[in-house]
Amino acid sequence: MEIINGGVTAAKGFSAAHTAAGIKYENREDMAMIFSSVPCVTAGTYTTNIVKAAPVVWDKKMTDSGMPARCAVINAGIANACTGKEGMKICEESAVAAAKVLNIPAEHVLLASTGVIGMQIPLDKITEGIKALAGKLDESMEAGTGAAKAIMTTDTVKKEYACKFMIGDKEVTVGGMCKGSGMIHPNMATMLAFTTTDVNIDGKLLKKALSEIVSDTFNMVSVDRDTSTNDTYVVMANGLAGNEKIEKEDENYRKFYEALLYVSKSLAMNIASDGEGATKLFEMTVMGAESKKQAKVLAKSIISSNLVKAMLYGNDANSGRVLCAMGYSGEKFDPEKVDLYIEDEKRKLCIVKDGMYADYSEDEATDILKSKKVICTADIHMGNMSATAWGCDLTYDYVKINGDYRS
Amino acid sequence: MEIINGGVTAAKGFSAAHTAAGIKYENREDMAMIFSSVPCVTAGTYTTNIVKAAPVVWDKKMTDSGMPARCAVINAGIANACTGKEGMKICEESAVAAAKVLNIPAEHVLLASTGVIGMQIPLDKITEGIKALAGKLDESMEAGTGAAKAIMTTDTVKKEYACKFMIGDKEVTVGGMCKGSGMIHPNMATMLAFTTTDVNIDGKLLKKALSEIVSDTFNMVSVDRDTSTNDTYVVMANGLAGNEKIEKEDENYRKFYEALLYVSKSLAMNIASDGEGATKLFEMTVMGAESKKQAKVLAKSIISSNLVKAMLYGNDANSGRVLCAMGYSGEKFDPEKVDLYIEDEKRKLCIVKDGMYADYSEDEATDILKSKKVICTADIHMGNMSATAWGCDLTYDYVKINGDYRS
Repeated sequence: MEIINGGVTAAKGFSAAHTAAGIKYENREDMAMIFSSVPCVTAGTYTTNIVKAAPVVWDKKMTDSGMPARCAVINAGIANACTGKEGMKICEESAVAAAKVLNIPAEHVLLASTGVIGMQIPLDKITEGIKALAGKLDESMEAGTGAAKAIMTTDTVKKEYACKFMIGDKEVTVGGMCKGSGMIHPNMATMLAFTTTDVNIDGKLLKKALSEIVSDTFNMVSVDRDTSTNDTYVVMANGLAGNEKIEKEDENYRKFYEALLYVSKSLAMNIASDGEGATKLFEMTVMGAESKKQAKVLAKSIISSNLVKAMLYGNDANSGRVLCAMGYSGEKFDPEKVDLYIEDEKRKLCIVKDGMYADYSEDEATDILKSKKVICTADIHMGNMSATAWGCDLTYDYVKINGDYRS
Repeated sequence: MEIINGGVTAAKGFSAAHTAAGIKYENREDMAMIFSSVPCVTAGTYTTNIVKAAPVVWDKKMTDSGMPARCAVINAGIANACTGKEGMKICEESAVAAAKVLNIPAEHVLLASTGVIGMQIPLDKITEGIKALAGKLDESMEAGTGAAKAIMTTDTVKKEYACKFMIGDKEVTVGGMCKGSGMIHPNMATMLAFTTTDVNIDGKLLKKALSEIVSDTFNMVSVDRDTSTNDTYVVMANGLAGNEKIEKEDENYRKFYEALLYVSKSLAMNIASDGEGATKLFEMTVMGAESKKQAKVLAKSIISSNLVKAMLYGNDANSGRVLCAMGYSGEKFDPEKVDLYIEDEKRKLCIVKDGMYADYSEDEATDILKSKKVICTADIHMGNMSATAWGCDLTYDYVKINGDYRS
């Protein structure tokens, strides 16, 4: 597998567009479109929040039924959540507008929205936006990057990744983009992610790969423990790489899995490091667990703790808070058998041994916590399973951003 | 029932003391003692965190076994959690020291600690502190108030409440104190609460009343969704009111229940309003629920949400975040049937009707949110059960306090 530049336009047959539709923001782009020259096999995972945005309901129906997709229309500014029947009507009208201008069936149009909950999207603006987007579709890398920028809300960096690998003599490419910074605690945030690939793969296998990968990547990220109403991750595979179709879990499936995992994990980690107000990425691994589930629950409980997050911001190795967050996770373990390590690129320090403060240099610990990426490992000495979760620090800016989001 | 001034020394036979033992803090009092002139029936509830502080293990054993209590020794500064065998040894030595100087059995000494996790309490300082406390025991209201102040950590106000009522011609008094400001998400926070009463009551009935009341009061409060290692609520009843012993759930039991509920609820609400960095109290009621549990889970999910808490700080009626937090709570309901109201002392405003933004004045909503106490009600129109939870806003100061707690 080779890591390459680019995002949703990296794979063959995919084009993208971006425009300023004035949905809510002024003086910036706020809509994007992804288009495939041929129908795609798709797989999607969505928020588990009972309050689901209208476009989530729309897409879920589409990807669950196995309906092929040609196009995705995405807007930032308004989430189209808690918008009742009018909200669903906006979805239908948007799909119809895209279908008309692209000459495809309305049932082949994926939709996604992010922004303020409760407001209605102005129909005229979104349909005008769709027309403008259709006229700007472009296969260039710049078009993909522009799309990734147009869907940002409180994000501070655009998020896109791509890679390629060979199946026989055919080059297969996987590229994705996402946005997400606050209301991030995906259970399958307002997180939107789209990955495109030209691989030729059976739909059921694509769904299986996506489901497993999401559980190890996006679902292991938290910024604020608030599971959004809009979380959406959709993979579109158009088959244009021309590889022999992947129909079983063979070596080719594993190559594709690795590529999709790379793009998904990179996007997920980037959401954590770009968490609202965040100054650093926190990577927490729990090892020595009896089961993968136990390791996951413990790791996610730690990265989700406000007290652990504030401690990271303060560069204070207050490891008792880490143990405390493990203790209320719901998983059982022996607190007196826990070892805790923190590390950066240069060194690894044991700060808790057998559940008690280890003898270490606080200055060195503070130095490690000042890194842009802090890696922490907890060994609970019960088995040989492990899991990693990604979070960020809790800062004044998180409070500022969210104390005054709508205004 | 009559509300009166005072706290743990309000009831007959109880004295208290406070002193500066230099456990960790300098230039302030950090230890308190409560003493009853006769043995008490006790009931206790404790953290559900797997990582339990040594004094929690000590007290739980005592109250679970029905052992009577005479005395409680409490220190602030160091939590005696994650301290292994040495931590338990500190408990034993503390109890022995108190027993010796008070001439009571060591098994009748309750212990509680709050502060930094992972550090060891210096044995010489705590035993010296105990000696000093024993010499200062006093039945005055001032002694109770001094004890309530000595156990504070990041608290900004002392927390004590008392009330009295009659059983026949006997006056019965209930008075309590607590501390708690951060790491507050009691599942049964570093929250310590002690209530003393001179009621004469059967031990099992006291436990039953405490268990029910805690589930409606302390367990409905959250500052930061971090369930502490040290949460402790103990009620000590010494019987000196001289009332006919309460042995069944009769009218007298209900009178006592109401009094204990008043003290417990007042203490719990005070913890929420004095949450670390908080500028306001948030009281959230969910009504129209199918079950008490459903109402509780929904109300607690809302007050625990960082995004809801930041919105409160910003005085921004971003009601979509309230609906979002209900949606990921795990309880089922119909988002399109939810009505949401906010109110202060002067008015009540409907901000969501049938799951969608209602037509209201944003200026008026902002005014309400600026109150020191914001009351919010969600009606989910499924049944007639309701529950209330108490939280606070998320502020720059929360981050500041917790970014830099140990130093």
